Amino acid sequence: MNAEIIAVGSEMLTPQRLDTNSLWLTGQLNILGVEVVAKAVVGDDRKLLAELVALALRRSEILLVTGGLGPTEDDVTRDAVALALGRTMTFRQDICDAIAERFARMGRTMAEINKRQAWVIDGFEPLPNSRGTAPGLWRVLPPGEFGAGRAVALLPGPPAELTPMFERDCLPRLRELVSPLEIRTRFYRVAGMPESDLDQLIAPAYTRYTNPVTTILAKPGDIEIHLRSRCRTADEADRLLSELGAQIEALLGDRIYTRDGDPLEAVIGRMLRESGSTLSVAESCTGGLLGQRITAVPGSSGYFLGGFLTYTDEMKTRLLGVDPGLLRAQTAVSEETAVAMAEGARAQTGSAYAVSITGIAGPDGGTEATPAGSVFVGLSGEGKAEARRFRFLGDRERVRTMAAQMALDVLRRRLMADLARG
Amino acid sequence: MNAEIIAVGSEMLTPQRLDTNSLWLTGQLNILGVEVVAKAVVGDDRKLLAELVALALRRSEILLVTGGLGPTEDDVTRDAVALALGRTMTFRQDICDAIAERFARMGRTMAEINKRQAWVIDGFEPLPNSRGTAPGLWRVLPPGEFGAGRAVALLPGPPAELTPMFERDCLPRLRELVSPLEIRTRFYRVAGMPESDLDQLIAPAYTRYTNPVTTILAKPGDIEIHLRSRCRTADEADRLLSELGAQIEALLGDRIYTRDGDPLEAVIGRMLRESGSTLSVAESCTGGLLGQRITAVPGSSGYFLGGFLTYTDEMKTRLLGVDPGLLRAQTAVSEETAVAMAEGARAQTGSAYAVSITGIAGPDGGTEATPAGSVFVGLSGEGKAEARRFRFLGDRERVRTMAAQMALDVLRRRLMADLARG
Repeated sequence: MNAEIIAVGSEMLTPQRLDTNSLWLTGQLNILGVEVVAKAVVGDDRKLLAELVALALRRSEILLVTGGLGPTEDDVTRDAVALALGRTMTFRQDICDAIAERFARMGRTMAEINKRQAWVIDGFEPLPNSRGTAPGLWRVLPPGEFGAGRAVALLPGPPAELTPMFERDCLPRLRELVSPLEIRTRFYRVAGMPESDLDQLIAPAYTRYTNPVTTILAKPGDIEIHLRSRCRTADEADRLLSELGAQIEALLGDRIYTRDGDPLEAVIGRMLRESGSTLSVAESCTGGLLGQRITAVPGSSGYFLGGFLTYTDEMKTRLLGVDPGLLRAQTAVSEETAVAMAEGARAQTGSAYAVSITGIAGPDGGTEATPAGSVFVGLSGEGKAEARRFRFLGDRERVRTMAAQMALDVLRRRLMADLARG
Repeated sequence: MNAEIIAVGSEMLTPQRLDTNSLWLTGQLNILGVEVVAKAVVGDDRKLLAELVALALRRSEILLVTGGLGPTEDDVTRDAVALALGRTMTFRQDICDAIAERFARMGRTMAEINKRQAWVIDGFEPLPNSRGTAPGLWRVLPPGEFGAGRAVALLPGPPAELTPMFERDCLPRLRELVSPLEIRTRFYRVAGMPESDLDQLIAPAYTRYTNPVTTILAKPGDIEIHLRSRCRTADEADRLLSELGAQIEALLGDRIYTRDGDPLEAVIGRMLRESGSTLSVAESCTGGLLGQRITAVPGSSGYFLGGFLTYTDEMKTRLLGVDPGLLRAQTAVSEETAVAMAEGARAQTGSAYAVSITGIAGPDGGTEATPAGSVFVGLSGEGKAEARRFRFLGDRERVRTMAAQMALDVLRRRLMADLARG
């Protein structure tokens, strides 16, 4: 099956902004076995959008339209799709009430223009929006009409609204449409390996299978490997999945941190809960990114005690008790300082483990011995303190992202070893 | 005048790659006063590309097609455009010789397949490629034919080939075609206002102008307002921009935190540098998100000292000196605790200002008096400590995002007042 994605919004036709939603959506569609054959970006132009919708529905089975569902005059997606399909729209009081209620919960009154978001293209099913006011719309077009049998989904533009709506309400409907076969999936994630190295390692295994289908998605410091088997019976799908899965697991070993797609911070949270341990952090160049990831997990207050952002040498000494002589002798970006930071955090909070990060995020601040992108991760736990040196390439944001990711992975490996030891 | 850009290449339909050439091309076109009204990405699919070319030429004066000019079977752009225009192609021996010569200069022999690159759509003008083998193609379509008067340029996909060819051979031809307009832009950002409220407030101003064009983009807790004026002279474009800009500034007042698109953390960084002040943070439910945003700004080590992640009551007392009696009496999520956390951070670090966040990110942990989404922001600075209560809707991630955003805005307002006071 083929799909097309149309992103609506004049801002994506400026020299500054790209449609990045389509990358994530493409990944999701690929996992279903659906290929994206064309993508388009249009401004807030009803007629042009209607033309593109009609063209897409003449050739592709699935059409996703993102953006343009807001409350203002600029938001033309509902109108344009209705126009393309020759359908009228109906005002839905229940949707309007739900939007008004959302505003009321925030202690505010719904503005008049938000009523625009309560219009539904006739025959379409509204998809609830857990993070915003604009509902999505979904329809498999009925027989005997233009585009018969094709699926159309209108989704909100902001990623924070799009992602949960797609996962919860759009994906299951697409899955039903795509295949009457039984589908089984596995979703590995691997930390800190370059995509090309990983691919070289596992390609000999997965290229021998057309079923399961393997899709590899790379983000900084994090690679996702999706396996998807489709068979007449669930047993057969499970068998194929386990067969290829076992080979991939043998090749990657403990570099795999999850088999079900959980983020690294959730995997660590589970291990800490399991062992009844507690954690604290000490961050320099990441400035809170590590703590933010750890606490993104609901229930993290069960094992995360707290942390220190020590952005200056003085704060490393004052808050964590790092010896000023050590800072002078070794500098703040060193193995010794990383260890001292982790030990300080553990002593101050009384946590079982403490992880630290100190490095040079750049673009400035590098030296010949310690260029920008140099990062030390420290780890203190009962009986042992250690540090690892990394060198990340890329801009400030990428260096910080990689640093937090590798700090979590250093902790994961230690927790694994300690749990295995009992 | 309007333009469309079509990027050709299956790799840009994967979850990993975007068409980024169009950003640079859009910038070049905007400078000429040409607006991009639609962009598309297609794979190496002759028929689909031909359809999109035909559609684009029905509505836009300029069409740029990038990529698909290589020597392999996959490279379908020449064929597809010829098909869309109903034109034949001619093999040009002079171009073939030039390609062969290029290979010879590198000490290599031209492969047979490179001859494909010597075919020219009849009536089109080849544009020399100084960095690769594929020539570009250019034509203003002749009167009496489909697309009469419209300009079509086929350009190579690799940026290193595209950029010099566009600048040297395409841009001068386009400039001749368009009446040159001057473009001026302004990029406001507003914190903590719902999009519909903002739109209601400023729509009466901006809807009276078709020039400048106004585009409004909303993210959680952050709204962007882009103004863009196009006039025959730069002075006139500046005048129109200032005229509408002054009205928007009068309506939104100090809710506008930037006129040039800077993020909130950069604006605060500038104010802190300006006043020679320093900052620290104390975070509970955001767990590092606030510190992470502040330190995302290069050079933030000039004013950010450090901070505390106090995820438990005990840590609030231990690291920040919050009175346990106060925590028992008022709970950790209260105005009093927020103030005590900020004062503790300021005392511990010696910073001029300290901002704190304490709240319930959810989904669990809420009570009737303090439901999930309740957040207190505390602020301590010389002479005054204060706290503000917020109630955010949405999931854990959204509540945390909004909390950090509003904490930064509370700080910004205080810095503005203190700077004004001198």
